[in-house]
Amino acid sequence: MTDRTYRVTDIVGTSQQSVDAAINNGIRRASQSLRNLDWFEISEVRGHIVDGHIDHYQVGLKVGFRLEDAE
Amino acid sequence: MTDRTYRVTDIVGTSQQSVDAAINNGIRRASQSLRNLDWFEISEVRGHIVDGHIDHYQVGLKVGFRLEDAE
Amino acid sequence: MTDRTYRVTDIVGTSQQSVDAAINNGIRRASQSLRNLDWFEISEVRGHIVDGHIDHYQVGLKVGFRLEDAE
Amino acid sequence: MTDRTYRVTDIVGTSQQSVDAAINNGIRRASQSLRNLDWFEISEVRGHIVDGHIDHYQVGLKVGFRLEDAE
Amino acid sequence: MTDRTYRVTDIVGTSQQSVDAAINNGIRRASQSLRNLDWFEISEVRGHIVDGHIDHYQVGLKVGFRLEDAE
Amino acid sequence: MTDRTYRVTDIVGTSQQSVDAAINNGIRRASQSLRNLDWFEISEVRGHIVDGHIDHYQVGLKVGFRLEDAE
Amino acid sequence: MTDRTYRVTDIVGTSQQSVDAAINNGIRRASQSLRNLDWFEISEVRGHIVDGHIDHYQVGLKVGFRLEDAE
Amino acid sequence: MTDRTYRVTDIVGTSQQSVDAAINNGIRRASQSLRNLDWFEISEVRGHIVDGHIDHYQVGLKVGFRLEDAE
Amino acid sequence: MTDRTYRVTDIVGTSQQSVDAAINNGIRRASQSLRNLDWFEISEVRGHIVDGHIDHYQVGLKVGFRLEDAE
Amino acid sequence: MTDRTYRVTDIVGTSQQSVDAAINNGIRRASQSLRNLDWFEISEVRGHIVDGHIDHYQVGLKVGFRLEDAE
Amino acid sequence: MTDRTYRVTDIVGTSQQSVDAAINNGIRRASQSLRNLDWFEISEVRGHIVDGHIDHYQVGLKVGFRLEDAE
Amino acid sequence: MTDRTYRVTDIVGTSQQSVDAAINNGIRRASQSLRNLDWFEISEVRGHIVDGHIDHYQVGLKVGFRLEDAE
Repeated sequence: MTDRTYRVTDIVGTSQQSVDAAINNGIRRASQSLRNLDWFEISEVRGHIVDGHIDHYQVGLKVGFRLEDAE
Repeated sequence: MTDRTYRVTDIVGTSQQSVDAAINNGIRRASQSLRNLDWFEISEVRGHIVDGHIDHYQVGLKVGFRLEDAE
Repeated sequence: MTDRTYRVTDIVGTSQQSVDAAINNGIRRASQSLRNLDWFEISEVRGHIVDGHIDHYQVGLKVGFRLEDAE
Repeated sequence: MTDRTYRVTDIVGTSQQSVDAAINNGIRRASQSLRNLDWFEISEVRGHIVDGHIDHYQVGLKVGFRLEDAE
Repeated sequence: MTDRTYRVTDIVGTSQQSVDAAINNGIRRASQSLRNLDWFEISEVRGHIVDGHIDHYQVGLKVGFRLEDAE
Repeated sequence: MTDRTYRVTDIVGTSQQSVDAAINNGIRRASQSLRNLDWFEISEVRGHIVDGHIDHYQVGLKVGFRLEDAE
Repeated sequence: MTDRTYRVTDIVGTSQQSVDAAINNGIRRASQSLRNLDWFEISEVRGHIVDGHIDHYQVGLKVGFRLEDAE
Repeated sequence: MTDRTYRVTDIVGTSQQSVDAAINNGIRRASQSLRNLDWFEISEVRGHIVDGHIDHYQVGLKVGFRLEDAE
Repeated sequence: MTDRTYRVTDIVGTSQQSVDAAINNGIRRASQSLRNLDWFEISEVRGHIVDGHIDHYQVGLKVGFRLEDAE
Repeated sequence: MTDRTYRVTDIVGTSQQSVDAAINNGIRRASQSLRNLDWFEISEVRGHIVDGHIDHYQVGLKVGFRLEDAE
Repeated sequence: MTDRTYRVTDIVGTSQQSVDAAINNGIRRASQSLRNLDWFEISEVRGHIVDGHIDHYQVGLKVGFRLEDAE
Repeated sequence: MTDRTYRVTDIVGTSQQSVDAAINNGIRRASQSLRNLDWFEISEVRGHIVDGHIDHYQVGLKVGFRLEDAE
């Protein structure tokens, strides 16, 4: 077995519902473009406020995925 | 349109239910005293433990709001 | 009353459900081994991804507890 | 001479021109509301992009000012 | 009992005597303007030097206080 | 409206003129390859010195852009 | 001589008198439970305020001690 | 000569041998996909332990490369 | 399968040979006292210098291990 | 060619005009005392305010220079 | 008046008495070698423990001083 | 015995071989100019890449040395 290499990309998932939903929305979208997603880490949690209420959450995520062997 | 200036204040929202509820409680209380709330950012999540269970959550928040023009 | 001393230990709670559940699982397990738990603080939130979905959450926690007097 | 106390407030100055203009706009607005401004420190430099060009700069500033004696 | 909200303000206490005196001077001045002070945290310790000796200490403090209910 | 996801990429813009020119050069080049650029944040400012003068500035930038829906 | 290994534990020493007393109280209590204490490092200084005065200091300490050889 | 722009990507190189081998494995894999690699910086060193021995090293690397001119 | 909890302890491994040897010495000693070691992370690399040469390396490590179920 | 060693020194450049002028003033002064200046990095940007306007900028710089071979 | 440049040097002051004494010892020694000392900032507080008591304090200090004009 | 003072200087050691060699090269060069070197700490590890391979390593080091008594 050769030594694997991973890449880490930064995304921001958003949701009008909750922090957890923003995480899941971001991971779901990332999995549409990237294969072999392996782990994530939250880098920041922010949000937008409108009329005194939270309009949407913005969760920064580092997402790691395994690089396939180059031919 | 003139160039806007914002102020950022630090608050700690608390809740006996969850992290999300502590965020919302803090934002709601801030909106009673401050106008033009625009965004927030979580700075820390702590909590108090009583008899081996979480008694309440304490969520540090930076809250940004637009300053109105001074006369 | 003498001056109390506290100790802080690092744990990682996990859950397949949510960030809040991972926090609670970690605190519950810590309370089985340690007495006088007093507070916690989240140090990081990570997770493992399988087939494009979050398989489980891993929440790093600093947990403080009061040291009893040594005899 | 008594020992002075200072307060530090966080603001965000903005400008469509440059980083320096955003700093100056923020300080000018702060000086309309606060007396005895004494120093500032940049905490972050961000900006908004529209159609591939910088639309405006947002410069986070910590601004220190001397508190007058309370009566 | 409703869920409390706290605010955190940054001050700089000064003293020509010692670090501890600068902390106490800052807290005393803050308590003249703010009610319900609850905790503090040191953010930095600096000082001014004149003729090779420390002329005064400057201690940055985050000071937390409970917000009273808005009517 | 579905919940948007953003990606953040790190670039280094350079210029022989000034910090502001390095920022603008980096954003301009990024906008040739990436659509929907939305914001930037400065992560570091460095530079190269030749014969006692600044030869060029190197400004690290985090650049956020909106991901379009995957089909 | 074999290569030594050290362990680092986090404690919080408290005192109603001063920062220095809180450090010494924490080290004294730690030395009742742990052998071969070798060094400490301050990680944070906080305190509790009651009626506008500091009620007690809380000093976070990393304390290193040499592990004895396992049999 | 126009002003160059660089991009920085995060990878994790792994090896069962040593930290240095993990760095080299990561750089070698990155050079198969990216042209004009120019520098790297270690962001973290972790590893996996099996049966009390290090099974493999995981070295986080920021890798910078020059962007070619867009046509 | 129940949700696992992990503990993270800080150690300092030392060696007169190299950084890698200090890491391995620390892990080996930790595995004599702790079961189920799972991962490590380097927190700092320091060393002692005698007569202009490195006398020994001191590598700070965070070591994670799985807690077994409490009865 | 032997392996070069560099030294990094911290300076603070000042200017009444702008951030860029403060950087250039600091580099110019450093080049009068130090040979082989090679790079710089901004560590902080502060300033002094008088009568509500910026009186001068203070820019912290890390400046690297190549050490010549010792005889 | 020309624009002044400052240099910042890192020292560690020590004392067997207290943190404050270690600060003063360090500043006093620095003032024997360097002219125009202007400010200091504490970067870390550590100490050595012997037989369960603090043997001496080690206080890291950044010390700033004004550079005189080069001829 | 009087209370000792130490100074900390920042250097960058380089090597075409390995991280360890870069550390040793930096310490060796520093010991040619400075007496009483006592400890070091790694602050960053970077490197230059040429044609997809590491051309040389650059290791940032803080090096502490004891100041001799001034006469």
